[in-house]
Amino acid sequence: MVLGLDVGGTSTRALVATLDGRILGTAHGAGGNPVAHGAEVAVREIGGAVRAALAGLDPAGVAAGVIGLAGGSLAPPEVLALWPATGLTVTPRLVGDAELAHAAGTAAADGTLLLSGTGAIAAEIRDHALRRTADGHGWLLGDRGSGFWLGREAVAAALTAVDRALPFDGPSLRLPGLAGAIADALVGPDGLGREPRSALIAAAHAEAPARLARLAPIVLDHAAAGDPVALALVDRAADHLIATLALVREPDSPLPLVLAGGLLASQTPLVAHLRPRLAARWPDAVVSTARNGAGAAAWLAARDLGRGTEELHRLLTA
Amino acid sequence: MVLGLDVGGTSTRALVATLDGRILGTAHGAGGNPVAHGAEVAVREIGGAVRAALAGLDPAGVAAGVIGLAGGSLAPPEVLALWPATGLTVTPRLVGDAELAHAAGTAAADGTLLLSGTGAIAAEIRDHALRRTADGHGWLLGDRGSGFWLGREAVAAALTAVDRALPFDGPSLRLPGLAGAIADALVGPDGLGREPRSALIAAAHAEAPARLARLAPIVLDHAAAGDPVALALVDRAADHLIATLALVREPDSPLPLVLAGGLLASQTPLVAHLRPRLAARWPDAVVSTARNGAGAAAWLAARDLGRGTEELHRLLTA
Repeated sequence: MVLGLDVGGTSTRALVATLDGRILGTAHGAGGNPVAHGAEVAVREIGGAVRAALAGLDPAGVAAGVIGLAGGSLAPPEVLALWPATGLTVTPRLVGDAELAHAAGTAAADGTLLLSGTGAIAAEIRDHALRRTADGHGWLLGDRGSGFWLGREAVAAALTAVDRALPFDGPSLRLPGLAGAIADALVGPDGLGREPRSALIAAAHAEAPARLARLAPIVLDHAAAGDPVALALVDRAADHLIATLALVREPDSPLPLVLAGGLLASQTPLVAHLRPRLAARWPDAVVSTARNGAGAAAWLAARDLGRGTEELHRLLTA
Repeated sequence: MVLGLDVGGTSTRALVATLDGRILGTAHGAGGNPVAHGAEVAVREIGGAVRAALAGLDPAGVAAGVIGLAGGSLAPPEVLALWPATGLTVTPRLVGDAELAHAAGTAAADGTLLLSGTGAIAAEIRDHALRRTADGHGWLLGDRGSGFWLGREAVAAALTAVDRALPFDGPSLRLPGLAGAIADALVGPDGLGREPRSALIAAAHAEAPARLARLAPIVLDHAAAGDPVALALVDRAADHLIATLALVREPDSPLPLVLAGGLLASQTPLVAHLRPRLAARWPDAVVSTARNGAGAAAWLAARDLGRGTEELHRLLTA
């Protein structure tokens, strides 16, 4: 058997499979990233997911394991000490989240990853390992084209709409289109009141800046519905992501390209804006979407045993 | 006599003049804005500047005063209680910093202000009073084309240069041009070390985000020297400022336009990039630069007495 673990900031997933591709157990828990949540939460969530995925199975039967952790290839000692307590007789190998996301989209050893979720990063993968990255610089200095970026730009666009509407002397300003939806999401559906600028700015600062990423789905929904402001933001996000990707991907490279992260993992308007740009710059690239991360980790474990076939990849990441 | 006060976050200036334009006293102290520094500091700096400017003069001879305060027309009770203690028999009238900056550039009652300092804002002035503003939304959501914005974009450009240079295996990465100068300013002249991305990101986060405005002069210096990355940033900053200005200024308006703030107060490369855009969109505008704010406050006080001539404006704001 092989064990795969995909440990992120918001969820922890485990998968146990045979080397011929039968999935024997899966489990998921809350976010277990030790950087985001501390070692204690990490041990609880990772340990819980491993035990649940192995329920009814002999942990000693696991011949190899891989654990993907956001933030690269470092784990606190508490996590390393966890494995014997779960009955495992092997130590899962640690990989970064970029390697894992790449493997969740392709069985190829070499390729490129483009991720846009709360943050945004591009990565060049060589022999299943991270070679170099671009962006991923965080919300203050980068993450251009990410969920944070889309959310912040949407609030900025709503503030510009407020600037246009002022001065006004009604009881409560209401804005149309995307600006109105952003205002509703930030301050509630009763309108912006008599001090709309202060109301929007205060609401946008009420949570940690990265939490502005929660507004990104509103932008994508409005873009899908044809809202011109939302479409313009999605277009700029696509430009930023292409520029980031171009920093780690050679012109005309034929290597696989994997799209990952909440904003690229399905057929979002952002993906629709990316596709023609990708086709124009990298016409020979096979573009795929990252699927099951825990399955990809299990496949990387099988690969460590010399059993990483394309067929097994298809079965485990489906 | 009239008394003018210009109270900002980094300096407090006072000016006493006769109604025929003779300047009898000036003084300046540290930042005295009560929002930024609290009421105690405000009272100390404002009171100190008033007493120093009135040294050797009879405070009861002041017939009118104006105090300009960043953040609009509210002052804490401690500041209002200060006037009798300084011997004044009149209560200085409070004006916002946008009104004051406009008056520091023109004696006209109606016009537009464009300010770029740490932040950025445009304001429409009618009858010497603020009618509406655009941007000024703060570093997280706006202030586009400001010193903060230029500084942040310069760090982002330096990080892109690092992304391009990685992976590298020397002892310490050095970057050319603007990127190198930004790296020197943030982490010192010994180069970025073996982890240049982390070093830059950590250094940029080591102070409050708005403090990235301290890097703006480096961008302007490099633009003046022809650095293409710096010139591109200054060009984008000018585009942002023009867009902000257009929100509060009618197309083809012939009204005066006042440029203010550290990035626009002298012949910076940013002003050089703004001028042709301003001439194209508002060919009839007289463009001037905000000069002495305390003098402008004293002139507004003279105007309250019916003595606000253009000649007095010229003498007091010189």
